[in-house]
Amino acid sequence: MKIGLDILGGDYAPKATITGAIEAQKQLTGDQKIVLFGKTEETKQLINQAGGNSSDFEYVEAPEVIAMGEHPTKAITQKPNSSIAKGFEYLKNKEIDSFASAGNTGAMLVGSMFSVKAIPGVLRPAIASIVPKLKSGFGILLDVGANADCKPEMLNQFAILGSVFAEHVFNVSNPKVGLLNIGEEEEKGNILTTSTYPLLKANDKINFIGNAEGRDLFSDHADVYVCDGFTGNVVLKLAESFYVVTLKKGFKDDFFDRFNYEQYGGSPILGVNAPVIIGHGISTPEAIKNMVLFSRDMIESKFIDSIRSIFN
Amino acid sequence: MKIGLDILGGDYAPKATITGAIEAQKQLTGDQKIVLFGKTEETKQLINQAGGNSSDFEYVEAPEVIAMGEHPTKAITQKPNSSIAKGFEYLKNKEIDSFASAGNTGAMLVGSMFSVKAIPGVLRPAIASIVPKLKSGFGILLDVGANADCKPEMLNQFAILGSVFAEHVFNVSNPKVGLLNIGEEEEKGNILTTSTYPLLKANDKINFIGNAEGRDLFSDHADVYVCDGFTGNVVLKLAESFYVVTLKKGFKDDFFDRFNYEQYGGSPILGVNAPVIIGHGISTPEAIKNMVLFSRDMIESKFIDSIRSIFN
Repeated sequence: MKIGLDILGGDYAPKATITGAIEAQKQLTGDQKIVLFGKTEETKQLINQAGGNSSDFEYVEAPEVIAMGEHPTKAITQKPNSSIAKGFEYLKNKEIDSFASAGNTGAMLVGSMFSVKAIPGVLRPAIASIVPKLKSGFGILLDVGANADCKPEMLNQFAILGSVFAEHVFNVSNPKVGLLNIGEEEEKGNILTTSTYPLLKANDKINFIGNAEGRDLFSDHADVYVCDGFTGNVVLKLAESFYVVTLKKGFKDDFFDRFNYEQYGGSPILGVNAPVIIGHGISTPEAIKNMVLFSRDMIESKFIDSIRSIFN
Repeated sequence: MKIGLDILGGDYAPKATITGAIEAQKQLTGDQKIVLFGKTEETKQLINQAGGNSSDFEYVEAPEVIAMGEHPTKAITQKPNSSIAKGFEYLKNKEIDSFASAGNTGAMLVGSMFSVKAIPGVLRPAIASIVPKLKSGFGILLDVGANADCKPEMLNQFAILGSVFAEHVFNVSNPKVGLLNIGEEEEKGNILTTSTYPLLKANDKINFIGNAEGRDLFSDHADVYVCDGFTGNVVLKLAESFYVVTLKKGFKDDFFDRFNYEQYGGSPILGVNAPVIIGHGISTPEAIKNMVLFSRDMIESKFIDSIRSIFN
């Protein structure tokens, strides 16, 4: 198993990414290798300086950086030697089994669409966010930003993508799917959700439990919440801001702790032909470590094979 | 000044509404009267039992109740003697200056549209929610549910409605307007927000400061946040659920305290020809009291005259 990691992505790269990679490596078995995309010589030196062993890792020379503000499509095409472009080149050629980066989100999305591509039958891949449940465990919210405008059929597919992910990666059996909406009743909602509801209801590949409201997001109401990428993104950023407030206020609590993206390290892109994880720009070593371990779990779960068989 | 209050609306009516009315009355001046819509004799008795003086209030006999689950339009037309229908009849005839109820939200919305009607030039009234700011004070978010699907021109009008309200009722001078969106840059967003941005930018009646993201909602970023009613409703219910979590966890804090709707009592409908406030279904006496005082402030501010002059 080869886990691809962008060493140059994220606000605190390469130091945070290197420290995170060293910590992750300690938890991997001998046949699980982390492949580092970046400036090879510099990376090796930094690993050794940080107390790691540079021979524990594999390397791909990719000296260019796609900065946070760069236009994704332009950057991917004009910087073939960037860590993100190289990562996807290797992912496409199956020289790595997954790719993760805390760099430019748009470039990660475009890169995955251009290289490994959407799984045949999937209209539009989605970015899934892990949301903590009040009692324990995690749910999934998707889409959180890949598709600002969605059609009902897309949301119907997101429900399948999220369900397979929850079942295979989070071991939730028969995951409950909720449609994020503005009322409990079937007829409530906007044009998108009222058109999506009957599709979800008729979809025998999922366990649809009806509408979910904003207040249900952190409850046991559902395991998978589907919405358009605009709503999901606003919701996600609002939720994150609450977590930040509780941190600043010094409130310590298990539930709020689970809001910390560091615990799982990033957001998977679902619906593409390989495991891809987008890390938070401000990723710490802990976040990077967990993003690598999350990549491993995603590879091991073979959830992509399951998605493929459903859409086949 | 006559402040209309539905005595039969809300989960804890009539006890909570009566106690709230008594408390509010103590803070009013002699020329400010609360007009109670409900079962007059029962109401008088309950007021006297609760230690109030029933002669401090005015009464309108309205014995029927529109329940929470009832279809708004049907209920308003089929129950002319309901407290909500009577309230709007009196509001339309200018026998009261404002109307507030913690009852059926949809009936309040339909009632205001059928009776006092939208201000000429206003495409669609919106429900505004008061959002606490992290440092101090309040911002406004609209629409939070009156219009699940919106056109850009509607959002452009919401910006004016919210600005006038913030300026006149909250005394915010030159209120900053933010467009709730999924990125800071002008070109980011869904079809609705990218089409709305240029309208807001060109609108010389508002102080548009650009896009706001989910994380900005409780900051000083803006005073008025505009969005479609679907997004606003999901956001509002999510935010409320956070407040409930902090309560349950026993976190005491000034910021979280300001999330408590009891502090202002309800959500105004903006864009109709009279002050109308929708209270929370679970309104306590404290919430009812503040809803009455909020009604008074809205009447005194004459913000509706200002809206009329802008749309004239």
